[in-house]
Amino acid sequence: MAPMNPPSPSSRPTGQTGQTLADLGEFGLIAALRELFPQGERVLLGPGDDAAVLAAPEGQVVVSSDVLVEGRHFRRDWADAADIGHKAAAQNLSDLNAMGGRATALTVSLAAPPDLPVAWALELAQGIADEAALVGASVVGGDVTAADSVVIAVTVLGVASRPVLRSGAKPGDVVALAGRQGWAEAGLAVLGRGFRSPRVLVEAHRRPEPPYAAGAAAAEAGATAMIDVSDGLLADLGHVAESSGVAIDVTAANLEVAEPLRAVGAALNADPLRFVLTGGDDHALAATFSRTATLPEGWRRIGTVSEGSGVTVDGATYEGPAGHTHF
Amino acid sequence: MAPMNPPSPSSRPTGQTGQTLADLGEFGLIAALRELFPQGERVLLGPGDDAAVLAAPEGQVVVSSDVLVEGRHFRRDWADAADIGHKAAAQNLSDLNAMGGRATALTVSLAAPPDLPVAWALELAQGIADEAALVGASVVGGDVTAADSVVIAVTVLGVASRPVLRSGAKPGDVVALAGRQGWAEAGLAVLGRGFRSPRVLVEAHRRPEPPYAAGAAAAEAGATAMIDVSDGLLADLGHVAESSGVAIDVTAANLEVAEPLRAVGAALNADPLRFVLTGGDDHALAATFSRTATLPEGWRRIGTVSEGSGVTVDGATYEGPAGHTHF
Repeated sequence: MAPMNPPSPSSRPTGQTGQTLADLGEFGLIAALRELFPQGERVLLGPGDDAAVLAAPEGQVVVSSDVLVEGRHFRRDWADAADIGHKAAAQNLSDLNAMGGRATALTVSLAAPPDLPVAWALELAQGIADEAALVGASVVGGDVTAADSVVIAVTVLGVASRPVLRSGAKPGDVVALAGRQGWAEAGLAVLGRGFRSPRVLVEAHRRPEPPYAAGAAAAEAGATAMIDVSDGLLADLGHVAESSGVAIDVTAANLEVAEPLRAVGAALNADPLRFVLTGGDDHALAATFSRTATLPEGWRRIGTVSEGSGVTVDGATYEGPAGHTHF
Repeated sequence: MAPMNPPSPSSRPTGQTGQTLADLGEFGLIAALRELFPQGERVLLGPGDDAAVLAAPEGQVVVSSDVLVEGRHFRRDWADAADIGHKAAAQNLSDLNAMGGRATALTVSLAAPPDLPVAWALELAQGIADEAALVGASVVGGDVTAADSVVIAVTVLGVASRPVLRSGAKPGDVVALAGRQGWAEAGLAVLGRGFRSPRVLVEAHRRPEPPYAAGAAAAEAGATAMIDVSDGLLADLGHVAESSGVAIDVTAANLEVAEPLRAVGAALNADPLRFVLTGGDDHALAATFSRTATLPEGWRRIGTVSEGSGVTVDGATYEGPAGHTHF
């Protein structure tokens, strides 16, 4: 769409030090971005036309979209562009993971201030491309436009031979978790106090490491329900409980509270279990399985499903904020 | 993704007069939005889980993404929320149209200030739903989050039995146009001077009417190249010329300069042909056809393709800005 107040084009060449998006221009930026995105075998038509075309031999496509806003989901002074790119891609790839699926393609729309350094945009794109490569997905299209602050909107497409919904948990099922949980939240707490260590937690906040193999493995093993932990473990288990019409109880002793979380808890005089119960940005997966199922590698049992509603910890309501809301 | 600074939740009920997004909360907003989006027969799983699932019996999916930014692509004081919703959807549906395809689904991500009225968000969503209904597409997912200004990111999915690319124009082909062209640009000129009439042009700027039947008809008739006119007619024909490695000449006398455009040109002391040559927001389609093809209904011949490069009007370079860039 044409902007209402187009700036004057500039003739500065690509790649110059200190070059901004306004210097490079929309089409120069798009050309530079395209070079960063290798196209996989499912891509019948990649970036550069009005739309991309993907093969979907399964006769089905799984799709999810998320948006990241500067100052709210990331800060340019807290994370570098590559980290933010990894995070933007991971957040979306994780949604496919939570369906028990496999991501095949991403589209990425970037709204950014005209004075944003080109180098920052290219590093962001490289981070997205590198994260997508972890699961074999291609960046096939998107949009770039000007805005007062950076907004990154990503859509992921993929396939799932047996999509696992939030709504299939049954009384008697076990609840299981895959991936690190609470690390990113502890890292955010550290950054929020002006600290930079423990480094491993700060890095977990900057660049999540979702358990990409765990989703399809859970689907294969017969998971009855599954969700990406993005709002907080208790909040997301709440979504499963509500969708499935069941109650979920988490056994605190079964949750792994890693040593760096204990250290931060001690330093900040906070209960480290809170990071695990309310954190979201690790993009762990939570799922339910029948009691007789064998949990796949990487999954650990953390609770039980019963008749009723709501989520409890060791049989009791957990005090305090259980997760995040976006307004 | 969890925001870094979650606001306190509120318990105000849905639908209250003057209610804001912060009052309603993320999950209340999502629940209200879902009611506005009917799900078509291709939707195997609609909104509400980590991802949606669509049937794609053609074994192929066409995808495109666009983002609209407040103050740049729309102004809340110049257009109402329903108009902006129609426009956001139209812009994306038009990309599928330009591939000769048919849109089947949209995802919509909304970043908005917490003090945005709920009524505005719901009217926006209704506009999107109504525009999508024109082509039988369903809104199957998306995201909502807080931001300083309104950003709307849309992804469209669809099918195209024979995708028409920008790169297929051949010397000897004719160039043709479908849909209104220049109206939205003239409407923007009117609004920019503080006027509200001619009303038909202001409305064309607020709510485009893309020729949705024209894309598939052109593909059926053997169009060799096609593009959505979004950057401006000459600019977009330039994309076709560059992608195809050809020259394009537009015959000015063949362009329709409608009476309202002439009136605005006279009032603003501007050449109304400039609106037609450089305007973009009508989402007209431009395509090339072999000389022997019969143009489908709604298409009119406006120029010719020859060997060479670049775009001319009546054989000469057109003076002045040919279109928009986004930085």
